[in-house]
Amino acid sequence: MKIKCIYASTDRSSDAFYLSGITVPDSFLSLLICGRKIAVVSQLEYARVKAHSKFSEVYEINALRKEVGNKMNLKPSRIGVPEIISYFQKSVRAESVLIPYDFPSGLSHSLQSLKLPIECSDEPFLKERAVKNKSEIAHIRAANKAIVCGFDVAKSALAHAKIKNKKLYLDGMLLTSERLRDAIDLSVFERGFIAQSTIVACGNQACDPHQVGAGALKANELIIIDIFPRCKKSGYYGDMTRTFLKGVASDEQKALVSAVKNAQNEAFLKIKQRVKGSTVHASVVASFEKQGYHTGQDLKKDFFYGFIHSTGHGLGLDIHESPSLSPKGTYLKAGHVITVEPGLYYPNVGACRIEDVVLVTQTGYQKLSKYPYQWLIR
Amino acid sequence: MKIKCIYASTDRSSDAFYLSGITVPDSFLSLLICGRKIAVVSQLEYARVKAHSKFSEVYEINALRKEVGNKMNLKPSRIGVPEIISYFQKSVRAESVLIPYDFPSGLSHSLQSLKLPIECSDEPFLKERAVKNKSEIAHIRAANKAIVCGFDVAKSALAHAKIKNKKLYLDGMLLTSERLRDAIDLSVFERGFIAQSTIVACGNQACDPHQVGAGALKANELIIIDIFPRCKKSGYYGDMTRTFLKGVASDEQKALVSAVKNAQNEAFLKIKQRVKGSTVHASVVASFEKQGYHTGQDLKKDFFYGFIHSTGHGLGLDIHESPSLSPKGTYLKAGHVITVEPGLYYPNVGACRIEDVVLVTQTGYQKLSKYPYQWLIR
Repeated sequence: MKIKCIYASTDRSSDAFYLSGITVPDSFLSLLICGRKIAVVSQLEYARVKAHSKFSEVYEINALRKEVGNKMNLKPSRIGVPEIISYFQKSVRAESVLIPYDFPSGLSHSLQSLKLPIECSDEPFLKERAVKNKSEIAHIRAANKAIVCGFDVAKSALAHAKIKNKKLYLDGMLLTSERLRDAIDLSVFERGFIAQSTIVACGNQACDPHQVGAGALKANELIIIDIFPRCKKSGYYGDMTRTFLKGVASDEQKALVSAVKNAQNEAFLKIKQRVKGSTVHASVVASFEKQGYHTGQDLKKDFFYGFIHSTGHGLGLDIHESPSLSPKGTYLKAGHVITVEPGLYYPNVGACRIEDVVLVTQTGYQKLSKYPYQWLIR
Repeated sequence: MKIKCIYASTDRSSDAFYLSGITVPDSFLSLLICGRKIAVVSQLEYARVKAHSKFSEVYEINALRKEVGNKMNLKPSRIGVPEIISYFQKSVRAESVLIPYDFPSGLSHSLQSLKLPIECSDEPFLKERAVKNKSEIAHIRAANKAIVCGFDVAKSALAHAKIKNKKLYLDGMLLTSERLRDAIDLSVFERGFIAQSTIVACGNQACDPHQVGAGALKANELIIIDIFPRCKKSGYYGDMTRTFLKGVASDEQKALVSAVKNAQNEAFLKIKQRVKGSTVHASVVASFEKQGYHTGQDLKKDFFYGFIHSTGHGLGLDIHESPSLSPKGTYLKAGHVITVEPGLYYPNVGACRIEDVVLVTQTGYQKLSKYPYQWLIR
């Protein structure tokens, strides 16, 4: 029998938050032992975690140090977190202690010094997190609804904007990426969601998928808007992207957008339980190639073009979690919640990404995000 | 010679953010080698990090895998992050690789398998972060100014609130912790700051320092308001606490609040460079004892009372960072930015905490937070 061990705050570890159900701002010890869910917390957290968390056993660390010290014939001052983990491992005669990939090295080195048999997982630590229950699905759907308010704000700003020297102006002032991002973030914040690094990227800026965008928004250029807020209360994320264009689109831009939507549809057709994430990703790669959109690297100018990221990722308490729609993607299960976000990036033409969130089902998928795909704004 | 190594996203590691100066949402490798500041990032991040970060050398990981593979006579598919770290360590003949306490165990175990000499630091990894420069001080001051807007919102709500059956009502609706928190958080958000877990805790709720507060705010009870937002742009935190009371205070409550302010003043008097954080903390402990406020544990009811946390902590890109004003606090240096936040917690009387932020100087301290201490609201 193995025991599982996490040492992190709920801010840093969604696994810890998943177990606790409430925020614990300082690092603390979580142990999973044959159905027992144990927390060892500081005096400061003890009453609150005992009363409100989902842990089945909660210990105050100083009291536990005394108790463990007594049993091991050591002074409490000699008992730290490593000794407490060792105590639990020995008391249930566990063959080893399983830790997550991002378990603090400082602590795992101490466990090694105690000759504790430890195993580090290179897979998601709480695999059960990938399959969502009804309440989790409702939280993710609610987050995507908040995003819709953000898109409404963006669409309205673009619709009311005037074009002067190819730049956009709203209410007489320059409409910048920053200004639109602030308006979007405020609209989702008012609904109880925190959006950070919202992407409002125009023209060539959008060709770099992690560029959040800066400066004047321009007419006749593709504008990627990617909003991924977290619910302040539940901790669950939403994640949606639409691409807009204010003014007149070239044939090249029109073809690009329609290629991305086609690829997303191909992906949707593939999604159901027992299909591999890599298969879904391959269908997008094939769709782009079939439509004449190639992926590669410009060696002189040091940039990559085409379809330069994966098709999607699990969504939940982390913005990126298991499973993945990528070359490494494993089998999908009913209950997985994933983003489907193909994109194309061609400097000097522009970039388009369209992203929705779906729930994997036995027979296919169910969309958890809803917003029109209309992208041309006159 | 040792090399320093971090593997984390800038969201998870303020050290990585401090080095990079821009956000990098996925985990990446940072290396510090004799003044060289090296980043190894994915294709997705490469152009942006190369153009905008503070790193002196930026490598795209797949290109680097090929290069390292060539030199080591291995296929690129055999070269991962551990082999890249090993390559750098060997190429500069470093005696060891220094990693932070929270370095991912998965990666440090791989480094151990490669027989790489690694050392895990149990101290702050980038010690230079504790001493702030002018621009960092300005960022922290700006964050505290945003907090003032939050206190203004709170004070105004309490001033306009009506009392009915000991509960507070504003504009005809119950004034709850949640409602006041939302109003505070919105006011700081509008100024570009994200406040999470803002504490608005009343009466006995406030006796648990990490309880954020829920339900109706009540007249004649102490209300702790602790606001600690992070600037969306700079990443720096502010952190201030005030305690209010709407209605009529008892003599016991008045004495409690004045004891906390006295203790804060005692701490201020002690703060200057070359004084230990533990000395400042001890002065608060002594002040409370002298004023007749004792600290202890109610064994029957399983709670702690009195002065049950440390006096303060460093503030910067992390809400809690080095140095600390606690029994373990080491020497303060000019340029350290610290909170000074004594508090007293007595179930059935209530709780009070007063928190300001100061810059340690050669001769004393300079306040980086400014808000009146007036706490009684009629």
